[in-house]
Amino acid sequence: MESTISKTIKKTTKIITQPNLNSFIGVFNSKKRSVNKGMAPGSLVFIGNRKMEEPKISIIDYTNEHFEEKQIEKHDISELVSFKESNTVSWINIDGLHETELIGQIGEMFGIHPLLQEDILNTAQRAKFEDFEEYLFITLKMLSINRGNKHLSSEQISFVVHKNFVLTFQEKEGDVFNAVRERIRTKRGKLRNVGNDYLAYALLDTIVDNYIYLLEYLGEHIADLEMQLLKRPSESLLTKINTHKQELHFIAKAVRPVKEMIKDLIRAESPIIHKKTTPYLKDLLDIATQSIETIESFREILSDYLNIYHTNLSTKLNEIMKVLTVFSAIFIPLTFIAGIYGMNFQHMPELDKEWGYPAVLVTMFLVALCMLAFLKFRKWF
Amino acid sequence: MESTISKTIKKTTKIITQPNLNSFIGVFNSKKRSVNKGMAPGSLVFIGNRKMEEPKISIIDYTNEHFEEKQIEKHDISELVSFKESNTVSWINIDGLHETELIGQIGEMFGIHPLLQEDILNTAQRAKFEDFEEYLFITLKMLSINRGNKHLSSEQISFVVHKNFVLTFQEKEGDVFNAVRERIRTKRGKLRNVGNDYLAYALLDTIVDNYIYLLEYLGEHIADLEMQLLKRPSESLLTKINTHKQELHFIAKAVRPVKEMIKDLIRAESPIIHKKTTPYLKDLLDIATQSIETIESFREILSDYLNIYHTNLSTKLNEIMKVLTVFSAIFIPLTFIAGIYGMNFQHMPELDKEWGYPAVLVTMFLVALCMLAFLKFRKWF
Amino acid sequence: MESTISKTIKKTTKIITQPNLNSFIGVFNSKKRSVNKGMAPGSLVFIGNRKMEEPKISIIDYTNEHFEEKQIEKHDISELVSFKESNTVSWINIDGLHETELIGQIGEMFGIHPLLQEDILNTAQRAKFEDFEEYLFITLKMLSINRGNKHLSSEQISFVVHKNFVLTFQEKEGDVFNAVRERIRTKRGKLRNVGNDYLAYALLDTIVDNYIYLLEYLGEHIADLEMQLLKRPSESLLTKINTHKQELHFIAKAVRPVKEMIKDLIRAESPIIHKKTTPYLKDLLDIATQSIETIESFREILSDYLNIYHTNLSTKLNEIMKVLTVFSAIFIPLTFIAGIYGMNFQHMPELDKEWGYPAVLVTMFLVALCMLAFLKFRKWF
Amino acid sequence: MESTISKTIKKTTKIITQPNLNSFIGVFNSKKRSVNKGMAPGSLVFIGNRKMEEPKISIIDYTNEHFEEKQIEKHDISELVSFKESNTVSWINIDGLHETELIGQIGEMFGIHPLLQEDILNTAQRAKFEDFEEYLFITLKMLSINRGNKHLSSEQISFVVHKNFVLTFQEKEGDVFNAVRERIRTKRGKLRNVGNDYLAYALLDTIVDNYIYLLEYLGEHIADLEMQLLKRPSESLLTKINTHKQELHFIAKAVRPVKEMIKDLIRAESPIIHKKTTPYLKDLLDIATQSIETIESFREILSDYLNIYHTNLSTKLNEIMKVLTVFSAIFIPLTFIAGIYGMNFQHMPELDKEWGYPAVLVTMFLVALCMLAFLKFRKWF
Amino acid sequence: MESTISKTIKKTTKIITQPNLNSFIGVFNSKKRSVNKGMAPGSLVFIGNRKMEEPKISIIDYTNEHFEEKQIEKHDISELVSFKESNTVSWINIDGLHETELIGQIGEMFGIHPLLQEDILNTAQRAKFEDFEEYLFITLKMLSINRGNKHLSSEQISFVVHKNFVLTFQEKEGDVFNAVRERIRTKRGKLRNVGNDYLAYALLDTIVDNYIYLLEYLGEHIADLEMQLLKRPSESLLTKINTHKQELHFIAKAVRPVKEMIKDLIRAESPIIHKKTTPYLKDLLDIATQSIETIESFREILSDYLNIYHTNLSTKLNEIMKVLTVFSAIFIPLTFIAGIYGMNFQHMPELDKEWGYPAVLVTMFLVALCMLAFLKFRKWF
Repeated sequence: MESTISKTIKKTTKIITQPNLNSFIGVFNSKKRSVNKGMAPGSLVFIGNRKMEEPKISIIDYTNEHFEEKQIEKHDISELVSFKESNTVSWINIDGLHETELIGQIGEMFGIHPLLQEDILNTAQRAKFEDFEEYLFITLKMLSINRGNKHLSSEQISFVVHKNFVLTFQEKEGDVFNAVRERIRTKRGKLRNVGNDYLAYALLDTIVDNYIYLLEYLGEHIADLEMQLLKRPSESLLTKINTHKQELHFIAKAVRPVKEMIKDLIRAESPIIHKKTTPYLKDLLDIATQSIETIESFREILSDYLNIYHTNLSTKLNEIMKVLTVFSAIFIPLTFIAGIYGMNFQHMPELDKEWGYPAVLVTMFLVALCMLAFLKFRKWF
Repeated sequence: MESTISKTIKKTTKIITQPNLNSFIGVFNSKKRSVNKGMAPGSLVFIGNRKMEEPKISIIDYTNEHFEEKQIEKHDISELVSFKESNTVSWINIDGLHETELIGQIGEMFGIHPLLQEDILNTAQRAKFEDFEEYLFITLKMLSINRGNKHLSSEQISFVVHKNFVLTFQEKEGDVFNAVRERIRTKRGKLRNVGNDYLAYALLDTIVDNYIYLLEYLGEHIADLEMQLLKRPSESLLTKINTHKQELHFIAKAVRPVKEMIKDLIRAESPIIHKKTTPYLKDLLDIATQSIETIESFREILSDYLNIYHTNLSTKLNEIMKVLTVFSAIFIPLTFIAGIYGMNFQHMPELDKEWGYPAVLVTMFLVALCMLAFLKFRKWF
Repeated sequence: MESTISKTIKKTTKIITQPNLNSFIGVFNSKKRSVNKGMAPGSLVFIGNRKMEEPKISIIDYTNEHFEEKQIEKHDISELVSFKESNTVSWINIDGLHETELIGQIGEMFGIHPLLQEDILNTAQRAKFEDFEEYLFITLKMLSINRGNKHLSSEQISFVVHKNFVLTFQEKEGDVFNAVRERIRTKRGKLRNVGNDYLAYALLDTIVDNYIYLLEYLGEHIADLEMQLLKRPSESLLTKINTHKQELHFIAKAVRPVKEMIKDLIRAESPIIHKKTTPYLKDLLDIATQSIETIESFREILSDYLNIYHTNLSTKLNEIMKVLTVFSAIFIPLTFIAGIYGMNFQHMPELDKEWGYPAVLVTMFLVALCMLAFLKFRKWF
Repeated sequence: MESTISKTIKKTTKIITQPNLNSFIGVFNSKKRSVNKGMAPGSLVFIGNRKMEEPKISIIDYTNEHFEEKQIEKHDISELVSFKESNTVSWINIDGLHETELIGQIGEMFGIHPLLQEDILNTAQRAKFEDFEEYLFITLKMLSINRGNKHLSSEQISFVVHKNFVLTFQEKEGDVFNAVRERIRTKRGKLRNVGNDYLAYALLDTIVDNYIYLLEYLGEHIADLEMQLLKRPSESLLTKINTHKQELHFIAKAVRPVKEMIKDLIRAESPIIHKKTTPYLKDLLDIATQSIETIESFREILSDYLNIYHTNLSTKLNEIMKVLTVFSAIFIPLTFIAGIYGMNFQHMPELDKEWGYPAVLVTMFLVALCMLAFLKFRKWF
Repeated sequence: MESTISKTIKKTTKIITQPNLNSFIGVFNSKKRSVNKGMAPGSLVFIGNRKMEEPKISIIDYTNEHFEEKQIEKHDISELVSFKESNTVSWINIDGLHETELIGQIGEMFGIHPLLQEDILNTAQRAKFEDFEEYLFITLKMLSINRGNKHLSSEQISFVVHKNFVLTFQEKEGDVFNAVRERIRTKRGKLRNVGNDYLAYALLDTIVDNYIYLLEYLGEHIADLEMQLLKRPSESLLTKINTHKQELHFIAKAVRPVKEMIKDLIRAESPIIHKKTTPYLKDLLDIATQSIETIESFREILSDYLNIYHTNLSTKLNEIMKVLTVFSAIFIPLTFIAGIYGMNFQHMPELDKEWGYPAVLVTMFLVALCMLAFLKFRKWF
């Protein structure tokens, strides 16, 4: 007998043991600004986790006719100067932020404000746009999900958009911009015919589109939860709901400032952004808005799931208690009757009668029947 | 006995099994933007479910005196050019968006910005208005409810409103615009006396009015729920409440941007919109506002229903426990007394007395009576 | 015994049976816009319930010296023309909206935009103000409570305010404007010295003031609820709280747009409104604001009541369970002891001793005492 | 035994009986606007409770050198005229609003708009500022707490600030402005060197500062609640929490419009307010803002308390049920064993054995021990 | 036996006894504005706790070449005058606010408005910025956590930023500005090359950066809570969650006005702030924004924790009741059967049969088995 009870109780104490909730807190804590406590503003300190061996600098320089692509070693960064004044579209991409001196040198070479250099290195920075007249500074988060352990991760990507060049800074080497690179190489789309501003847009578009894809992926998982909730609610389901809530919170925190950022970018009406590029930026704004609305929808759905889960618990408690009460209501009076005739009084006339025992049995049966009929009538079952 | 208990417990585990909640998640997931992942912005990809066989192009061209209506085959779309510059009111309606090339050709013919062409095809687009000076672009959702399985569905409808023509794009052939067509044919209302802008308004009005009709239909169902809640709350009721919450969420997501869209349209003060049409647009805005307020009211009501349902559960639990406690409080002492006189001690003087048995019975009766009186006095029942 | 238990259980299932909640849903559904589905905008259809036999047209025409009051038959409405251009203050009141042609004729006669005519007839319209330069259009809801069945009802009242006349449209004949009529007749107040705009204000004031009176009436009922909650919470109380919540929701839905409407009216700075009337309109705005704040207060109070009610339920459950547990904790061990000495072993030395029975009784008494002392010490009671 | 159980149950039904909640509803209902139902706007009706015998008019007239203070009888109010045009600072204070004619006469004498006169008398008026160019009208609530029965009360105080004089209207005679009077008399502070606007500020400051003092007083009581919550949560505590919530709600309703009012006053940039007084008004705004933030904090804290209280209830229920279940789990099997050997079968071999009885006792002990060990292992206690 | 039950019950009543919640209420109450009740505005009264013995005045005066640092006795404050007009960067820091005369003297010497002097002394002041043209006034809260008892404390720091000097006022001597002092002394960073405005920024930056560090510290503790929640939820955990909620509330109340304050500072476009310093102020705004967002995230996480905790309680209650019900459902029928054969009827044929006893035992076993099988089948365990 103990074994089944043991199982019942085991379940009681098992509640929520998958350590899955901590994505947000974890991410927040892994990127500590406090490492540069007490330093002068503008001091370059990399805030984050080193995600690759060696920084990588790559250049793509093109016009409609011309195309050049190359890697530059970090001791040859003086080569970059030539792209600063060229009239071609020049895209300089730096992967890896942990070598702060390198970022400092590039920053100085291209005349980037020290505070922006700090922002590039501070991967806990929230998405923002700043207009420095000569160039525009944009920073935002690239979100991705590890299809293995299903952990969300975010990477900070910063843009410096100048009339003559686009600088991009990534935490680690990745394939996020490969589609754009391929479109430039193969002259697909209009990229080769337009300027640095459209290049910046195309890159931003890659990142912002990705929010929608991520939410679609998440949406599938949430829909799965629903099926489980309808079938067999369990504690692990509760944990999953809470994990998804945290993930959505994490995504919202990245995406919400992106919307503001794009709005600011459009409103700035910088001469660096051609008038023809504005509709594309507005399209970007639409996607960001839609992402935020979808996040809100998902959060509301998850919160509905939690409510359903709780109502389930209450309904079950009611039913458990009904079973207990039905059992007690039927057997307690019967046991009492048996108790009466178990008393040892010498003068209990019923005990001597031959019909005594069957009469009591019949009485018991009738009492039980009445009880059942009564509960039935009251719609307890 | 088992059979009734079995039923009780069966009910316990039956809780919520109708898979009815997933309208929102389902709709969101069936329209995946991720299919055009990595493509250049402006690439035409149809996002949605193919809802009909062959695209259908129909034209209605009219002034007060003149009226012409015809269907055009997709290989004859060059015929459309003539309507582009004509001073008549020309309404070109395209049903079916899955042939992206066709949309591309029409888009090019009428000079529609590539991004808008993408928006027309992306049926996950949220309602919006954009002013391209030469023409206005409007997109919104047509909502309808399947009277059979009671599932909500949405169809994206896009408008291009030019001084000389109105283009409309629908996902599938439908009867939504038939009333307007009929009014044009029969010269009912003022449609035949006014321009393209009023035609566009009349079409929009059809869609926006439909939101109110849909909400009225939903309102009836919600009122039904109330009657059930008052009569006999059950788990299936809970599911229905949650389904309606999801539906309202789905509708809200479609309607809320429509209000913004109409506001933008009015504020734009485009020369394409005649001054006389503005009051009609304001009327449209009123309807959208009213729809949103009604949605909010319904959501609040449903949330009140949920609260009442929960309070019901708690009240019932209290009453179940009261029954159990009353039973126990009465019979446990009695059984104990019976137990005492069931002991086998040789020296129990009461057992030998002739009045022993009746005295105990009377005592038991009095104890039970006291217990009942006491509980009665304490207003337990 | 069954009878008391029966009562207990009867109460369990009685929960909430007064069908009182449906005021809001009911009102919403009784006024269906869908009756004019598919009609041209501006088509005149009466949306609502016919509330009187025959429409009634009455005119009050006055200056400081002059006063004229008369009823006009519906076939004599051409008489109204004379008031259109007169310099006197002319108040034309139409009771009853179900004869749409009549409204159409009057509308045409006074040059009212077809859409406004539609708004006058659509009693599901939300409160709004529109400035048509030549005249102002105002529509809002008159709220009243049936002192008998305590049901809220709303009536739509529309105003057309012109420099030369004021038109008012009501769903049914009523006494709402009688006080104003009396003030005009008796020259009380400043009504006879000022223009059409002040007349319109005075009429609006009657309606808006009524919101406060209604809330005061409701406030008394809510205060009564509180007394009941403190004395003896019951399920009927819960129903009342929920009914009042719905009523407040219904009132809020009527009053909130009124505030906006008055704001718009003030901001419009129409030449039809004399500068001297503006302070009066601001006063009106104050009253509307105060109404809304009072509604919010009441809602918050009701929601506090609900919380108190729920806490009551939980506290009671705890106490019920305490009683059950105390009973069980005391009697279960005693019954067990009795059970031991009820066993039929031949060799139970205690059974033969003369002191056996009293010793067991004393033991039982001590066990019960310890149990009680312990629970007392632990502050269970 | 009954006596302890009786106590337990007595507690069950005692829940919440202190009639303490009704401060807000009470205050709202005691000031009925409905008394002037149907009257012309601007009709003077006192809305409120008569709080003193006879109205009192007092004048303080001063410049830096000159000082005059006197009481005026209500039949001598013509004396007031002289202060209307004087260049001195003249503060005329009227205590008691129930003699509406007096207010009317003073209003006329100083040229106060009839609506403002109505506002002065309507003590249900919310705080507001109005700029009538010649003079400014300010009305707000003075809050005070009765240190005896701890009931909050509010008094309406209205200001008419003219370049030449300040009129103040209070519901009853009070000591609220005594500190200011004393400062004027003793030339403390800069009051005697500055104009009517600064006097008005100084009086307002007295009222607004009082909000903070009141909140500090309330803060102490809330901190006391916390100590009680940590020590021994009880139903009376719950009542107190709810009472404080209502009080805060009441205060918030008075203070929130005050903030708006001061903002409007600053924004108005009236020539009556010297530029040098503006910083003082901003300081006032700060205090109002801080009051509102403190109210919000307190409300959040009280709502946390409620949550803790509820969690306490749930935790206790769990523990009560644990005790019941532990008792049942241990004794029910033991009683069953005793029951077996209490059966009267003739052929029960164990009964005849000498070791039977001790063996059963040992078995029972072991079963109880196993049960305890098992529950211990499962961390039930 | 009692000992284990005793433990169980002890736990019941132990709930929440660490007096840890009162940080916010405590802080609010310790700083009473009411001490200056009735005083003239601008009266200098120190509101707060005296935190040090003697006020300390220190001066740092520098240009790029020149550097001077000294302490001044409070009777020598006339020395400060020389710095008022000097073109060097002069930073005068006053530690200790309890000697109100000293603050008054310094205030007069540097021409600080009396109200600001009051603000400096009123440590219950919320963060604000005010532009007095000649100088800027900034006040905000420095937050710190006592690493020992983990209590949050706040210190008010006020700035007067003039073109020629920066005055800072602190409640007590502290090391918060040491890093800036060191940077000035060692010429690290650009501090020595720029003006008073940048110095003010650098000091502000120290304070605002500290908010992030504090939140990071708190974040670690919250992540710890999560681990505990997943392992073994207990009442002390609940107390911790509530304490952190209060702390975050406390921090939010300090940080939120700081954001506004910085925004106002940037918008003021005061000539005292060099254009080159503006990007640094925007960076400050970013940090404040990020702090607020982080606070919101943490609050949401804590509120999720509370929900999980509550669900745990409910789940456990369900499981406890399941155990009780399973026990009862199995043993109550068995005990009943034993009760039947414990009756003393003389004519009970089963009792005389040799197979009677084993047959009953087998029956009991089968009943128990059926019961278990049935519950198993219904997935109760």
